[in-house]
Amino acid sequence: MFSGALQDLVDELASLPGVGPKGASRIAFHVLNAPAEDVQRLIDALGAVKQKVHFCERCFNIAEQARCAVCQDPRRDQGLICVVEEPKDVLAIERTREYRGLYHVLGGAISPIRGIGPDDLRIRELLARLGAEPVTEVILATDPNIEGEATATYLARALRSLDVPVTRLASGLPVGGDLEYADEVTLSRALEGRRTV
Amino acid sequence: MFSGALQDLVDELASLPGVGPKGASRIAFHVLNAPAEDVQRLIDALGAVKQKVHFCERCFNIAEQARCAVCQDPRRDQGLICVVEEPKDVLAIERTREYRGLYHVLGGAISPIRGIGPDDLRIRELLARLGAEPVTEVILATDPNIEGEATATYLARALRSLDVPVTRLASGLPVGGDLEYADEVTLSRALEGRRTV
Repeated sequence: MFSGALQDLVDELASLPGVGPKGASRIAFHVLNAPAEDVQRLIDALGAVKQKVHFCERCFNIAEQARCAVCQDPRRDQGLICVVEEPKDVLAIERTREYRGLYHVLGGAISPIRGIGPDDLRIRELLARLGAEPVTEVILATDPNIEGEATATYLARALRSLDVPVTRLASGLPVGGDLEYADEVTLSRALEGRRTV
Repeated sequence: MFSGALQDLVDELASLPGVGPKGASRIAFHVLNAPAEDVQRLIDALGAVKQKVHFCERCFNIAEQARCAVCQDPRRDQGLICVVEEPKDVLAIERTREYRGLYHVLGGAISPIRGIGPDDLRIRELLARLGAEPVTEVILATDPNIEGEATATYLARALRSLDVPVTRLASGLPVGGDLEYADEVTLSRALEGRRTV
C-alpha cells in the first residue's frame, strides 16, 4: 500500500518521456532514500529551467537571456545560418567544433501524419532573417529521415527565389561503421555522393 | 550549447536510477516545453515525499504517520508477520489482495558481496516484535534469488528457538508461463514441491 505522497510522485514521474511505471517507482524509492540535499538540487534545477530558460529571440535556440550563447558570440560567422529541427540538434553540431556560423531552430519538422505543416514551424521567422541579415549561405541540417527530408525540400523550394546559396548536409556511410551493415538507402546515397580522392 | 540551467537539470536527472544521459536530456527538453503547472506538480511531489514519507516505527514499511497504513488497520490479522526485503515488496503482496496480516520490512537482503550482513538489516527489530506481539506465524517472503534465499535461511535459523511457525513462499512455475522455457532450478523446485490434485 503506497502512501499518498509516494504514489503522487510515482504518477508524476511516470508521465515523463521514457519513464514507465516500474522506472517511476524505482526513481521514487531512490528519492525517498536519497539525502535531502540531493533531492533539493533536483527540485531547484527543475524550477530554474522553467524560470530562466526560454527561446532565443533571433534563432529560437534555448537561451537564458534574450539571445542565446551562439547569437551573443561576435566571433561567429554572421553570414552562415544552419537550419535545424530542435535545440538538441544545435548541441550535436556544436559538439563537432567544426561549425562557426549561426543557427535557426525550426521547432520540429513537417509531418502530415502528426498534423505539423510549414506554418507550425519557424519558417516565416527564417525568411524574415534572410531579408534582414547579411546571409551568404543557408545550410539545411534537418534530420536525414522522411520528415526531415520533406522539410529540407520544402525549405529549398521556399528559399529558391531569395538568391542565397542553400546547401544540405552530406548523406553517406557513418564514420567507423561497417559497409556490410549499411542499409541500402545510405549506401546508394554514399555512391551518389562519391568524391575524387 | 546548452544553457547553464538546462545542463544542470540534465546532470541531476542523469544521476537518477535508470536514467541515462540521453534519457536525461529528453526529460529536460520535455520539462522545458511542458506547462509550468505540470512541472510545479512534479516539484511539489518530490518535496512532499521528502517531507511527509518516512518509515513505519513498527514494520518499517513506508508511512506518512508514525505507523503505516497496514499497521493502522485494526482488521489486519495481528498474528501474521510477512517478512519482506523492501517496501515495494509490501506493495506487490498487497496487490494480490490475498494477504490480511502484518509485514516486517528488512531493508534489504544479506549480501556478502555488497557488504550487507544480518546486522545491517532490521532483524533485531523483528526479534523484538516476536517477543512483544502475539505472533502465530512468520512468513518469509524474501526474493527467490541467492541473496533472498540466504536471508530466509538465516532468519529460519534465528527464529528456530522462538517456537513460532516459520513458512516460506512456494517456489514453482510462474502461472501463465511455459514449461518449455522454465529454467532448470525453477523446474526442479516445481517438481520438489508437487502437490496431490
